[in-house]
Amino acid sequence: MAEKSFHEIEGGLLVADGFVASTAEAGIKPKGPDMLLLHSRTPACAAATITTNTFRAAPTYVTENHVANGHARTIVANSGNANAATGEQGMANARRMAELTAITAQVPVDEVLVCSTGRIGVQLPMERIEAAIPELCRSLNRDCAPEAAQAIMTTDTVPKECAVQFEAGGKRGRIGAIAKGAGMICPNMATMLCFIATDVAITPELLRQALGAAVSKSFNCISVDGDMSTNDTVIALANGEAGNELIDDEEMHRFTVFCEALDFVTRDLAKKIARDGEGASRFLEVRVSGARSWDEAHTVGRAVTRYNLVRTCIWGGDFNWGRIAAAIGASGADIDPAGVSIAIGGITAFAAGEPVEYDQDEADAVMAVDEIVIEIDLAAGDAEAVCWSCDLTPEYVELNAK
Amino acid sequence: MAEKSFHEIEGGLLVADGFVASTAEAGIKPKGPDMLLLHSRTPACAAATITTNTFRAAPTYVTENHVANGHARTIVANSGNANAATGEQGMANARRMAELTAITAQVPVDEVLVCSTGRIGVQLPMERIEAAIPELCRSLNRDCAPEAAQAIMTTDTVPKECAVQFEAGGKRGRIGAIAKGAGMICPNMATMLCFIATDVAITPELLRQALGAAVSKSFNCISVDGDMSTNDTVIALANGEAGNELIDDEEMHRFTVFCEALDFVTRDLAKKIARDGEGASRFLEVRVSGARSWDEAHTVGRAVTRYNLVRTCIWGGDFNWGRIAAAIGASGADIDPAGVSIAIGGITAFAAGEPVEYDQDEADAVMAVDEIVIEIDLAAGDAEAVCWSCDLTPEYVELNAK
Repeated sequence: MAEKSFHEIEGGLLVADGFVASTAEAGIKPKGPDMLLLHSRTPACAAATITTNTFRAAPTYVTENHVANGHARTIVANSGNANAATGEQGMANARRMAELTAITAQVPVDEVLVCSTGRIGVQLPMERIEAAIPELCRSLNRDCAPEAAQAIMTTDTVPKECAVQFEAGGKRGRIGAIAKGAGMICPNMATMLCFIATDVAITPELLRQALGAAVSKSFNCISVDGDMSTNDTVIALANGEAGNELIDDEEMHRFTVFCEALDFVTRDLAKKIARDGEGASRFLEVRVSGARSWDEAHTVGRAVTRYNLVRTCIWGGDFNWGRIAAAIGASGADIDPAGVSIAIGGITAFAAGEPVEYDQDEADAVMAVDEIVIEIDLAAGDAEAVCWSCDLTPEYVELNAK
Repeated sequence: MAEKSFHEIEGGLLVADGFVASTAEAGIKPKGPDMLLLHSRTPACAAATITTNTFRAAPTYVTENHVANGHARTIVANSGNANAATGEQGMANARRMAELTAITAQVPVDEVLVCSTGRIGVQLPMERIEAAIPELCRSLNRDCAPEAAQAIMTTDTVPKECAVQFEAGGKRGRIGAIAKGAGMICPNMATMLCFIATDVAITPELLRQALGAAVSKSFNCISVDGDMSTNDTVIALANGEAGNELIDDEEMHRFTVFCEALDFVTRDLAKKIARDGEGASRFLEVRVSGARSWDEAHTVGRAVTRYNLVRTCIWGGDFNWGRIAAAIGASGADIDPAGVSIAIGGITAFAAGEPVEYDQDEADAVMAVDEIVIEIDLAAGDAEAVCWSCDLTPEYVELNAK
């Protein structure tokens, strides 16, 4: 890769000019902050990608509807309750969250996006949410980025944030973002949420294009348990406070710079989600090369990261490359096994369709580290993709028994 | 269902006239019988269904090739080694198993089918196999049905056999069968093996048709871990020793009777595999109704039985119907959530798109039994399907760490 056109900075969600946020302990979760308001002081354009689960949560419909015109300023989110599989009452509650926020924050209702994450099938405690929203609107500030990352956590063990700075059309541009997600993670989109706030000036069309491309190569490449969620939502708000000349052409150099910065942020957060997978003890990166297309590489990588028997032997530290072969074969991709090569931690176990002798002590050693890299060469083309996951542990099962 | 046209009998694999078998401890597994020879004393027709995994094992190619003409008399099988991802040497070894069996048993090589199950990516210990095959051929007998079921076991905790008797065209017909499978089970086909020996007289075409239909509604409806194997094979041999008039027309009553008996045998063994899933403590049956087609019902049932987060809460005894909704939504079927109803253990939790109040004590009680039944009504048509699985337990992870 060429020299990076951006650099990572401290500060999390609120590094971009013009954004404020606030959090509240509304009592939806047993403890800790469980509501977040993110708001741009000036009008912003917006883009979102939303789960393809047909049982998707009520707030995803409100968000989809309100983001359709490419403009939104405010996100209201809660953790502890997914507002999914909640029928008509759930839809009314999601709309009510948007309306109350709009009235109190004095923005049009269709500029308010709504997100929920947590238990499925239980109605939101609306009296608590209605009590919290005015307080959230009153207390908007620029200093609560750490609390913002915490307010959307459910089974996450660490908050997840990322911020970058770059030059866009002669001006300093910034992106701040937070994400959550640890279980029910197989985005297409996962339950993951990600909120991205940037101060670049960009058209809604190009923001949507940049976000779609970034999500497909980041969040859509991670799997914790293969279980697609009802609530996955990634939202980007861009308020133009950086003062750069508008990014309104995909051929512009500054669009490329913005996309590179956005890709870094989304990949960084996606990997943080995989690393913090429920019960995870090891991080898994699967690099697929030699595919005929990115889709084919992604299909194979995804299948390997979803194969329970690969993930259990990552936990057990077993150099069991045969299960990787089985997963590749089960992926549905039209693979010729005679061309395939497989390596784990740099040790080739299968080359061009034939098993290869390896040193068992070396194999044991590469399985004893915290980050396992599996490389798969399909020898069918030039395309490649990278997918991420974590090991499957007894702790995962224990965590999800209730 | 109308009165059954068959009844279950004791005796396992060898109840049908004219079949003999033998087992050996060849030392492929650490202990116990690990090779099986099944043989018809008279010519037999044969049908097989084989895994769709593109990384399928060498013996599946030999079996596919030899069964293509609809005739085979002998199956040679080993457990402890899958002979999968073993390249050219693996292919030569699978062919050698067939050739040596053919020579010693004095049958044409293309009447010998080969199956392996066990660890992937390791070459077969051919000297041990070559030493065992002559002994297997010498010791063929009609009394070793229990040992036959054991000889194909890997991580199975119990042998799996089933036998039925029925009247076919005025004669007594019988089907005896064994199966194995506990992990890497998501047949399409799964690692499961199933050998079926019947003495009815039937054409190869109708045997193939009956077997295909039976497998799609039995083995292809079970999932232990969602991981499609490299070796799954179901083989049926029919030697005509019952002396019935040939079944050569699908409109014949005796074809219907045979199919009903075969369906029972394959479903019985499929459920035994799900019940004996690696680390399983509870059996799960998912009944999907109101679908527009069997395929749609099967897609939804399969998705629910594959959803890790459903299977963990079955283990935990948590009446977490919301995860079932998420699994239905993630299935890829074109579902309208507003019509869907969900019940667990007879307690409706979600009716026509709305959550329903239920008594928590009653919900806890239905989750405390060994067999959990989930009913899903899609309210979109008249088709239905049943899928089976087991709970996901910490023991499953422990078992598969190495």
